[in-house]
Amino acid sequence: MRKIKIIGCGAALPDHIVKFGDQTRYRMTEEQNLLDLVEKAVKEALSDSGLSIEKIDLILGGTATPLQAIPCNAALLHERIAKGLSIPAFDVNSSCTSFITAFDMASYLIDSGNYRNILIFSGDTASAALNPKQRESYELFSDTAVAFVVTACDGESGVINSKQCTFSEGVHDTEIRGGCGLMTAFKMTEANRDDYYFDMKGSRVLKLAAKKIPAFLNDFLEETGIAMEDIDMIIPHQASKALGLIMKRLGVPEDKYFDRVKDWGNMISAGIPMALYACIREGRIKRGNKIALFGTAAGLTINILYMIY
Amino acid sequence: MRKIKIIGCGAALPDHIVKFGDQTRYRMTEEQNLLDLVEKAVKEALSDSGLSIEKIDLILGGTATPLQAIPCNAALLHERIAKGLSIPAFDVNSSCTSFITAFDMASYLIDSGNYRNILIFSGDTASAALNPKQRESYELFSDTAVAFVVTACDGESGVINSKQCTFSEGVHDTEIRGGCGLMTAFKMTEANRDDYYFDMKGSRVLKLAAKKIPAFLNDFLEETGIAMEDIDMIIPHQASKALGLIMKRLGVPEDKYFDRVKDWGNMISAGIPMALYACIREGRIKRGNKIALFGTAAGLTINILYMIY
Repeated sequence: MRKIKIIGCGAALPDHIVKFGDQTRYRMTEEQNLLDLVEKAVKEALSDSGLSIEKIDLILGGTATPLQAIPCNAALLHERIAKGLSIPAFDVNSSCTSFITAFDMASYLIDSGNYRNILIFSGDTASAALNPKQRESYELFSDTAVAFVVTACDGESGVINSKQCTFSEGVHDTEIRGGCGLMTAFKMTEANRDDYYFDMKGSRVLKLAAKKIPAFLNDFLEETGIAMEDIDMIIPHQASKALGLIMKRLGVPEDKYFDRVKDWGNMISAGIPMALYACIREGRIKRGNKIALFGTAAGLTINILYMIY
Repeated sequence: MRKIKIIGCGAALPDHIVKFGDQTRYRMTEEQNLLDLVEKAVKEALSDSGLSIEKIDLILGGTATPLQAIPCNAALLHERIAKGLSIPAFDVNSSCTSFITAFDMASYLIDSGNYRNILIFSGDTASAALNPKQRESYELFSDTAVAFVVTACDGESGVINSKQCTFSEGVHDTEIRGGCGLMTAFKMTEANRDDYYFDMKGSRVLKLAAKKIPAFLNDFLEETGIAMEDIDMIIPHQASKALGLIMKRLGVPEDKYFDRVKDWGNMISAGIPMALYACIREGRIKRGNKIALFGTAAGLTINILYMIY
């Protein structure tokens, strides 16, 4: 086990609330940007941890989308929360499951003894790229930021096992083709404008995920000797309204996973840490509980991290 | 020491060669994109290593700029080199020093015993965002891709120490403000068009780097007990023509560092691995040599990794 303990968490939702039928979504106003939300989440997480920013050894971004093409998101956040300090800052990106990958990397760094306290943040500007013409995705996503402080520990908390797979037969099912290196902003025309929006082929994603997830989970349980019953709480990416259906097919009882898609929608990289944050704040998980962070991401990537909280 | 051994490397330069006085630069043609170059570099690296792609446990991007806002670069490469396989794929980003950060992360993963063979790639589409009006940067950068295969080892190769610091007082000295989350492609106008180009305040970057590098290196040498004379070869980011000047100020003799800025320019995240690739291919470093990968990145980030090749 890679010893690592969560000692602080914070989350920030933007001011603008949108309703689509019984579904609630959160979107930033024109005056807000993601760094405002991340800064707020970080302040809550640091306060919660009892640590000042000076005690942080690494600022680790676990985000899906870039705020700028250069520099990385963590450096942009550094200016907001650590200007004048020399704390290293970099990003880890596995799209929607970036928080899992970043948390996993943090567990290796802390377990090595070379790092003690790491600040991980997630969040994306979903609303910046939603296409009003693609109703399924336009009505699904929310803007959010979440931050966690993790630390070295002598107790029982830590990452027991993790597994990530990428199946690139689904790489074009969830993407934003334009705006970056392959198709720059300068190349936008009236004809290709839709390429600069988020594009999700929902039924294809769902089909590939439904095909790959059962074998992925079976392999994970087999390789690690974990039984599904050992897991006290599954904290999944709040990908879509199909979450309940997928969990049912996997045989996970309703009280063993967290589902708030109706209230929050898909928060991209903030989806999993926001669910973890809520589980902690609402007392749905307690110290010593065995939890699994789990999700699918554009790629198609499937990611799981099994830990003692 | 985190045991890790380089067993394969590859590099790919684009077809279009540009001359600015005595300086040579490489730029992609309209028909090429970065994935073409990365794919070529990966094939050379895999062939060099004697491993087939099926033996790779992780495809790790160490790139500065996104090819698409979604998904990550490693997933896009996965489609080119590993379609049909389930190899995990994600990116690590510390701007120009992303290769150092990715290599460092790989050393933790391999040293843990959980990963055996990791493919690391770097490269950026510099030419996509160069502003003809900003001559200093327009004439400095090249497009390149580089790939390395690293593996677990029982011998003497490995990472002895590494250190990274970010000084965000320089975060806006090197940036591309437009195209991503903070300023999307949809917001481009004739008035703000320059914000979508790469923007480098060269003299500010140099001033901050010159101020921070000596103390950073002194701290590193002091913390680790390494003497400058212990390092057989410094392999620096080929940031600018000032490289020689900075090395001279640090007291590094000419035969102890690698400088090919004149022939290649600044290759962004590919700069350091391309220099490492050349040192290996040209026999400038040999097994058992102690080498230091070193560089500055947008952030401002300073990064060093000291290893036995």
